[in-house]
Amino acid sequence: MSDNNQPMTISEKIMSKASGTNVRAGDFVFADIDRAMTHDITGPLAVKGFYEIMENKENPKVWDPNKIVIIFDHQVPADSLNAASNHIMLREFAKEQAILNYDVYEGICHQVMPEKGHIKPGDLVVGSDSHTCAYGAIGAFSTGVGSTDMAAVFASGKLWFKVPETIRFEIDGELPDNVYSKDVILHVIGDVGADCAMYKTAEFGGSAVRNMSVSERMTMSNMAIEMGGKAGIIESDKVTEDYIKERVPGYKLDSEWKSDDGANYSEIRKYDVSNLEPQVACPHNVDNVKPVTEVEGTELDQVFIGSCTNGRYEDLEIAAKIMDGKKVADNVRLLIIPASRTEYMKLLKAGYIEQFMEAGAIVESPCCGPCMGGSFGLLGDGEVGLATSNRNFKGREGSPESFVYLSSPATAAASALTGKITDPRKI
Amino acid sequence: MSDNNQPMTISEKIMSKASGTNVRAGDFVFADIDRAMTHDITGPLAVKGFYEIMENKENPKVWDPNKIVIIFDHQVPADSLNAASNHIMLREFAKEQAILNYDVYEGICHQVMPEKGHIKPGDLVVGSDSHTCAYGAIGAFSTGVGSTDMAAVFASGKLWFKVPETIRFEIDGELPDNVYSKDVILHVIGDVGADCAMYKTAEFGGSAVRNMSVSERMTMSNMAIEMGGKAGIIESDKVTEDYIKERVPGYKLDSEWKSDDGANYSEIRKYDVSNLEPQVACPHNVDNVKPVTEVEGTELDQVFIGSCTNGRYEDLEIAAKIMDGKKVADNVRLLIIPASRTEYMKLLKAGYIEQFMEAGAIVESPCCGPCMGGSFGLLGDGEVGLATSNRNFKGREGSPESFVYLSSPATAAASALTGKITDPRKI
Repeated sequence: MSDNNQPMTISEKIMSKASGTNVRAGDFVFADIDRAMTHDITGPLAVKGFYEIMENKENPKVWDPNKIVIIFDHQVPADSLNAASNHIMLREFAKEQAILNYDVYEGICHQVMPEKGHIKPGDLVVGSDSHTCAYGAIGAFSTGVGSTDMAAVFASGKLWFKVPETIRFEIDGELPDNVYSKDVILHVIGDVGADCAMYKTAEFGGSAVRNMSVSERMTMSNMAIEMGGKAGIIESDKVTEDYIKERVPGYKLDSEWKSDDGANYSEIRKYDVSNLEPQVACPHNVDNVKPVTEVEGTELDQVFIGSCTNGRYEDLEIAAKIMDGKKVADNVRLLIIPASRTEYMKLLKAGYIEQFMEAGAIVESPCCGPCMGGSFGLLGDGEVGLATSNRNFKGREGSPESFVYLSSPATAAASALTGKITDPRKI
Repeated sequence: MSDNNQPMTISEKIMSKASGTNVRAGDFVFADIDRAMTHDITGPLAVKGFYEIMENKENPKVWDPNKIVIIFDHQVPADSLNAASNHIMLREFAKEQAILNYDVYEGICHQVMPEKGHIKPGDLVVGSDSHTCAYGAIGAFSTGVGSTDMAAVFASGKLWFKVPETIRFEIDGELPDNVYSKDVILHVIGDVGADCAMYKTAEFGGSAVRNMSVSERMTMSNMAIEMGGKAGIIESDKVTEDYIKERVPGYKLDSEWKSDDGANYSEIRKYDVSNLEPQVACPHNVDNVKPVTEVEGTELDQVFIGSCTNGRYEDLEIAAKIMDGKKVADNVRLLIIPASRTEYMKLLKAGYIEQFMEAGAIVESPCCGPCMGGSFGLLGDGEVGLATSNRNFKGREGSPESFVYLSSPATAAASALTGKITDPRKI
């Protein structure tokens, strides 16, 4: 237990609230989970684990069905008999336990969770997916856990944590034209490396982050795991409050979830992004980041704009504006997959779906798509892809002999028009 | 060789033209192919066979690259590493041989071929897909062949045929409201059985067929194979001419491709469809057909509206009008996949894509979808699907333990609203 009067990080505040104690980085807590999310890939094992834990109970019930959300997004609509069986099993579990289940039509879990109002600042959230850290964008401590941990949460509503230390990323300056939060987070990851924040919270702040929309912030928090972060938190503010209010009528941010002045950071890293170039993560690691000017001209076979990292309305609007009236290059396939049904509908009403189709893109129903290499849009041997998603590990988008570059939607859209990696400032 | 003055069927006329001889049913011909189509599933084996045939040639070339079309539609965008490899191989072959290749974004082969003006009345067409008979709707003799036959066609432009006998289906009467050409062809198949037309041409005529649009006729010809037909021909007329003219400017139907009066049919079967009910093919055979009233109320897990049989603008417009302002039932997934990019764009501009999405449907980019059970939208064990496609064999849409019913888009749309098989006349 720690001294009550010492200033705290956001992570320490949330862990203190969740454990009913006053804790600091390094303490171990047994914390109450505010929200648990699972999806069609990791869910079945969590359900199996839950029944194993409960095997002596006659009518096993989850700790609180209102705090669990199941979302089908990875293999939708069912792309194999195994996927179809998993969906059936999860639907039955959801029904039996009265758990909210977003079926195959709703979108990617990390978009649907905040979009449907399931996340609030100060919440402790676990999801059985590594990019669960995304919800840190709205001030939650949110982290990925394995299916067996999720089984324990289903049963008890609790999980132990070591309260993580926090690295503060102080990001100032005004982003140049055609440079976006994806470029910022790629730049930061390239700078600090894939293991910089192992079991630490990456806390993003500074004027550049304050000026970001929730959508842009989500891109930042989503990728905290790519520097090893346990969580990727951004302090909640008016922008956060407005975002939630649109989804949860009457919501008021009662206390701003931010780190206290003088909070104990393990490290503070400062960036000025005023002159940042568009960034590209090169094969086969997310931290292999270069300015676009160093890789422009790289021939592409496929461009994918979508994913929980960059598949929102704002992302696709940027792409649409760059592509306006132009055509996808002959040698490249452009795959566009909005992150959720809600985002899709906004794009449709704005005329952007039509514009993408006219340009020659393939527009699919909201889902994870090729991001995790298991559904469709896979790259074959020797093929090169550029994607707005979050990982470019060997084989991530298909063949282990393929190559994946990561960029912002702006760079991806510009590149789809030329068929090679292209600086969006030059389109 | 046959007597020049004897009246001829359409099939005999086309085979005579294609072989430069005067032939009748039962004769064997070695015929010139006007158009050859292959797709991403059967294409790779055809290409392999072509190179085997040509193994002694230094620079092997197909007989006529302008007469071959390659279309990617079954596993698009690539849904496995194997599919991705097949796509790469076919793209390279098309490039090397200067063959027209519609890549993953264009749509289903049997829609794209006529839509892009590749089919004319009187043509002899082969495709390495069983539903190639679809082009009979515009007066071509068009039939499915295996990949090795296709390899021989690539090499020589010729194939042997036995000139088939013809069964004439004389279909008269005016179709009642909510009853469509799909109901007619299901009714006919249910009546005659799956092997009635083995190695014969099914020739569809009569006032009901004359009154059909090309889209409606395509549904008829498409399913000729489901009664065993080698081809499914409809005589060309002004409707045919107008359809082609829209796609091939200046096209004129020089001689109407129709059977002569007194042509020698192996059988003539007459139908009056004035009182036909909506029809449903029940698991697990296409000829297991019942009026919708006998199966209404059957609980459904998925409804699929699309495919080369019924995925055109006209089909989806019928569905949209039935669904107007209504919602898909909670217990059912509605999958809508337009048959081609062109049809998709027409639907988008008409507002129907938005309407389907608002209703809760999943709208995917044009492709074969779950029709052949290999891509996505698969049914799991025990699940029940209703589809507008052409086959309901055990396991066709996923698990061998699932059940597939076939119907018109009207019946499918009505059923999506209720979650069970529903008579569209009662919505």
